[in-house]
Amino acid sequence: MTKVNTTKIKVAIVGATGYTGVELIRLLSLHPHTDIQYLVSRTEAGRRVDEIFPSLRNVACDLVFDNLDAQKLLACDVVFFATPHGVAMQHARTLIAKGVKVIDLASDFRLQNLTEFEKWYQLVHVCPDLLQQAVYGLPEINREKIKTAMIIGNPGCYPTTAILGLAPIIHQQNLMNQSVIDPYIVIDAKSGVSGAGRQAKLNLMFSEISDSFSAYGVAGHRHLPEIEQGIDTLILKPGQNQPQRHQIRFVPHLVPMIRGMFSTIHLRLTDVGQTLDLQRLYTDFYRHESFVDVLPSGQYPNTGSVRGSNRLRIAVQTFANSPVATILVVQDNLVKGASGQAVQNMNLMFGLDETAGLTLAPISP
Amino acid sequence: MTKVNTTKIKVAIVGATGYTGVELIRLLSLHPHTDIQYLVSRTEAGRRVDEIFPSLRNVACDLVFDNLDAQKLLACDVVFFATPHGVAMQHARTLIAKGVKVIDLASDFRLQNLTEFEKWYQLVHVCPDLLQQAVYGLPEINREKIKTAMIIGNPGCYPTTAILGLAPIIHQQNLMNQSVIDPYIVIDAKSGVSGAGRQAKLNLMFSEISDSFSAYGVAGHRHLPEIEQGIDTLILKPGQNQPQRHQIRFVPHLVPMIRGMFSTIHLRLTDVGQTLDLQRLYTDFYRHESFVDVLPSGQYPNTGSVRGSNRLRIAVQTFANSPVATILVVQDNLVKGASGQAVQNMNLMFGLDETAGLTLAPISP
Amino acid sequence: MTKVNTTKIKVAIVGATGYTGVELIRLLSLHPHTDIQYLVSRTEAGRRVDEIFPSLRNVACDLVFDNLDAQKLLACDVVFFATPHGVAMQHARTLIAKGVKVIDLASDFRLQNLTEFEKWYQLVHVCPDLLQQAVYGLPEINREKIKTAMIIGNPGCYPTTAILGLAPIIHQQNLMNQSVIDPYIVIDAKSGVSGAGRQAKLNLMFSEISDSFSAYGVAGHRHLPEIEQGIDTLILKPGQNQPQRHQIRFVPHLVPMIRGMFSTIHLRLTDVGQTLDLQRLYTDFYRHESFVDVLPSGQYPNTGSVRGSNRLRIAVQTFANSPVATILVVQDNLVKGASGQAVQNMNLMFGLDETAGLTLAPISP
Amino acid sequence: MTKVNTTKIKVAIVGATGYTGVELIRLLSLHPHTDIQYLVSRTEAGRRVDEIFPSLRNVACDLVFDNLDAQKLLACDVVFFATPHGVAMQHARTLIAKGVKVIDLASDFRLQNLTEFEKWYQLVHVCPDLLQQAVYGLPEINREKIKTAMIIGNPGCYPTTAILGLAPIIHQQNLMNQSVIDPYIVIDAKSGVSGAGRQAKLNLMFSEISDSFSAYGVAGHRHLPEIEQGIDTLILKPGQNQPQRHQIRFVPHLVPMIRGMFSTIHLRLTDVGQTLDLQRLYTDFYRHESFVDVLPSGQYPNTGSVRGSNRLRIAVQTFANSPVATILVVQDNLVKGASGQAVQNMNLMFGLDETAGLTLAPISP
Repeated sequence: MTKVNTTKIKVAIVGATGYTGVELIRLLSLHPHTDIQYLVSRTEAGRRVDEIFPSLRNVACDLVFDNLDAQKLLACDVVFFATPHGVAMQHARTLIAKGVKVIDLASDFRLQNLTEFEKWYQLVHVCPDLLQQAVYGLPEINREKIKTAMIIGNPGCYPTTAILGLAPIIHQQNLMNQSVIDPYIVIDAKSGVSGAGRQAKLNLMFSEISDSFSAYGVAGHRHLPEIEQGIDTLILKPGQNQPQRHQIRFVPHLVPMIRGMFSTIHLRLTDVGQTLDLQRLYTDFYRHESFVDVLPSGQYPNTGSVRGSNRLRIAVQTFANSPVATILVVQDNLVKGASGQAVQNMNLMFGLDETAGLTLAPISP
Repeated sequence: MTKVNTTKIKVAIVGATGYTGVELIRLLSLHPHTDIQYLVSRTEAGRRVDEIFPSLRNVACDLVFDNLDAQKLLACDVVFFATPHGVAMQHARTLIAKGVKVIDLASDFRLQNLTEFEKWYQLVHVCPDLLQQAVYGLPEINREKIKTAMIIGNPGCYPTTAILGLAPIIHQQNLMNQSVIDPYIVIDAKSGVSGAGRQAKLNLMFSEISDSFSAYGVAGHRHLPEIEQGIDTLILKPGQNQPQRHQIRFVPHLVPMIRGMFSTIHLRLTDVGQTLDLQRLYTDFYRHESFVDVLPSGQYPNTGSVRGSNRLRIAVQTFANSPVATILVVQDNLVKGASGQAVQNMNLMFGLDETAGLTLAPISP
Repeated sequence: MTKVNTTKIKVAIVGATGYTGVELIRLLSLHPHTDIQYLVSRTEAGRRVDEIFPSLRNVACDLVFDNLDAQKLLACDVVFFATPHGVAMQHARTLIAKGVKVIDLASDFRLQNLTEFEKWYQLVHVCPDLLQQAVYGLPEINREKIKTAMIIGNPGCYPTTAILGLAPIIHQQNLMNQSVIDPYIVIDAKSGVSGAGRQAKLNLMFSEISDSFSAYGVAGHRHLPEIEQGIDTLILKPGQNQPQRHQIRFVPHLVPMIRGMFSTIHLRLTDVGQTLDLQRLYTDFYRHESFVDVLPSGQYPNTGSVRGSNRLRIAVQTFANSPVATILVVQDNLVKGASGQAVQNMNLMFGLDETAGLTLAPISP
Repeated sequence: MTKVNTTKIKVAIVGATGYTGVELIRLLSLHPHTDIQYLVSRTEAGRRVDEIFPSLRNVACDLVFDNLDAQKLLACDVVFFATPHGVAMQHARTLIAKGVKVIDLASDFRLQNLTEFEKWYQLVHVCPDLLQQAVYGLPEINREKIKTAMIIGNPGCYPTTAILGLAPIIHQQNLMNQSVIDPYIVIDAKSGVSGAGRQAKLNLMFSEISDSFSAYGVAGHRHLPEIEQGIDTLILKPGQNQPQRHQIRFVPHLVPMIRGMFSTIHLRLTDVGQTLDLQRLYTDFYRHESFVDVLPSGQYPNTGSVRGSNRLRIAVQTFANSPVATILVVQDNLVKGASGQAVQNMNLMFGLDETAGLTLAPISP
């Protein structure tokens, strides 16, 4: 009996040999409504997937990496670009013209501000007109727009934690139309090493990373404008006015672990802000979300507790009569921070249950 | 809408706060045909599962640990004992008398030889008569007996790799009724730390284990008699005669990793043995197995490639005109080496698809 | 030829079986002017050091742990207390009365404010009068006082990074007698696991810590008052007035590594502060220090680069026309953050070269 | 007072940017009788050492990498080649002609059998005549020859553990002129990742190595002929006859740790062998060695206990009335397995105390 289901979504993955590409294959292998039809890898064309990735033996067992062929992409329902920045924008126009949806895990369709895009990514955008119809794929913020989008800019891993960690309080501020936090926000973020991708670099070698902790991007990181965009515009609902702009200091660090991201967000509450019950505010804001989990007061998250799953966890810490507020956010950078979120977006775009293929429990320990 | 399915298998887990207990919850949370009804933990009775194990928030969200109550066990269809050695045997007779199946992840029902059991585990067996109907739960060897068993002795993690790594060649030897390997077998095994259980011990602390490698059980390890039993009796099919007994030297080591087990089996082929095509022999032996994967010649496994999955991988290395043969076996010690295998046994015992709930791809990297 | 040198400093270590105690033994084994005479361990009395700590075989080979005997302490020149909080204060008065110097690696003599001490450590201080003559053992700040001290409160690991990371700019602010930084300071700190001590705790097990990152002490950590004391008083030189008090938010995190501490200090410069050349200010401030190393502009430290050594490294990041300033500080928590600093203090107290026994290069990779 | 000592040994290191090169700098920075005069690195010529290796800031602070200049090498007393295989042999003849001693950490002067050399290293030897005067630099076996050697082939890391782990029993066998062990020896070896060198390779990335264990060289590893040479010839003292040749099965594995090597040697004792007291034999054999430490019976080594030191530890396990014997050997692969042993050889060649510069205690935890 052959495994054929003509109603399944036909999926292509371009750049399938990076960590986010492989993670897409892993997640989609459990998805009830998709069929991976086409895997593109420039470097590994002609080789079986399970030859390069033994973890996928018996999982994606008849798949072979292929060269990029526009016709084959057009035969699919959705194309995931798990490529370096600048690839998706080369193909998006053709694809959407034929009704093929595009989910870009790189940055081509994240930033609406072209100047920022070109400054941080050192690329000229080839289809700036498409930016307007591209939707920033953060379902908890943009769910309705995602449902009808043809192009998704799948969020960066750090911005996912930053925006979801700040959304409830910024949203509240917008609603109240007055400042509840000081505009100066510190986001001190820590990432596992898989976030740096599957490339042979000396500074990512085991002997360099293990038993050591470092900062990087201290002088500037390209996820900052994406975070700023998220805070200043995405969370603003129609009809709201934003009472202030924010000044964000974002410093990422590298943790000797494979997966996991931990963002510590340091806020100062205004006098008005101190009157809010932040624990309740956060809990209510995400009450109906499947993948965002606000911990009870007094519990703090660790990245191990979300390993391999699409879950993002938040803890809120405030103090009586104090302006101090600390928001802790964890996720698996390869799942909710990348490929899992991409699948979540796909589910929304195709009218599926948002959690399809994403119900795996975290692997712990 | 409550989540009720009267046809689901009602599951109890005793000792649910150890690593194998938590892993059972994780695996069963994806199982289509089970409902966890009852979780027993002496130490955590009354506390919510997700309070102790944050990874299980939103997974096993309404479960609470409970004290042991024989009546509640009897209301289930199957009881997993993820307990210390000696607990399952206290309850087995009562349970099976009422038709409740027992799967013991500890050692109470593994060894048929009582003297060996009492020597290695320092326990007096309270129901030696039940040993005869207990089945050693290694499906690839004992599938038919497992299907009708009421009591399963779920194999130890090391014996799983050793027996499955040796089965094809020992089976061949039995078939040919002559020695194909030297009776002296070296099993040099390496395990991740989760195999030592979830207990606060100084020698298992991060600062003691990380960036270090050690041996243990060098003077003797309780998995040795289980391996010997597996080699000498389990693989023997009815009507076969075993041409020789084996002398096994088993030395386990501790690797600074959470999950994963790697057994390097060093064999010497006899002249007859050197005429065999071991690669083919192994491939054929496991051709129809869902969870045992023999790698193509020239590929070697690593434990990362099976992380979180029920898969066991084997590589075979021989040399032209040489008695040297090396068998490499990897698995996730908590899945195929413990809880996944227990679910596989349950599936067989209840007539389900053997792979139900066990189709997760390994998580890599 | 026996190894006798009557002029060597006779050293006792109380609490020698913790990580800081063992590290003291390691460092002193290379010290040219000390002899370890007496090692106290309640739990291991009578056992050889190298039986418990195989790394010290052939290093401290004739040493045996002993019970606490006040007379034996009095026969030494200096006693290091590598004990839990509250032990050193039981012995200090007797020891200094007999001219025996005391270096406490716990907190008994760190905080001048008794209320803070009793609040955070839940201990009643038994010799509050001695606090006045106790010296906070941070040589780069307090060198002259240390030279003549009889009692040293050896700094906590986090406070060492925080105070040394802030000293140059706070000192400058004091000199100018006007604010150069905003009073709100975020110290986002990350520590290796050895900082939690050598105790069997479930949450410090390898399987819990590895491949995971967490925060702790989010609701308050006892190193905060020590940091505040350091900022508000220690850096103030006689005759200086402090222009402002600071509001410090300190959040520690746990990194899956054995050794290493990384503090990211987030500052906001005032308009006056933006006119300063911080890189130069920091470089000049520590120009003559043997153990504090300010990195050139554009270089960032990692904890691996100080592993096993008494070195603390600082990087300074500022931006043109921006209030943002970030100070990155790394050290080995067991050396400069504990035992190495204690030896540095001892060297000063005995008129030795400050670097004696502390010239080991970091071990890298 | 300037730090000048005209009697110090002038040292050059060629290939100083690999891990063994950097380790040489670390060790020599503590050596009382050497001055590093010249550091050669093709790739980093012109850059300061501490710019590339921040751990060496303030350690080797005025050193700059330089291009290779034969004249500068000739101005030194000894040249360490921490280079790829094939470099040292290009320079050895010129150097020794001028009285400059050569210590090659690669393989050019290890194997006396040219055929084996050319087979395993795929290189044509350019000075086979020099092989005869080259000495295999394993001081515990070859001390006297090393003292007068001009060229040292510094042993490979695995062969160091294998030969020192087997020397006492093989030596005894030679003495008795009869077999005490079965000729078939299994060496199951495990190494930290730094042994693979400082090169950007995909399979050595943190995300590939961490939390995983693998085998490599299963089909053959170049250290095998070096081990065989060591067993079959080096341990044979003049006048001894070797009663048998050995058949060695050597399988190396990769451990997710930076430093450390653990070799498990599986032996079978003959009847005669079973009459020997191996514990005593080993202890006596190494009684006067500074760097080889035979553990008391019942203690087992771990690699963490030798981290950063030149120590090699051995445990011996036998059983009453059993042919089983297991030898466990640990070392730091970069120290006793490479750079530390090279310094030990240098000390012997220059008539210094063999332990000069090598007295560092292991760093633990």
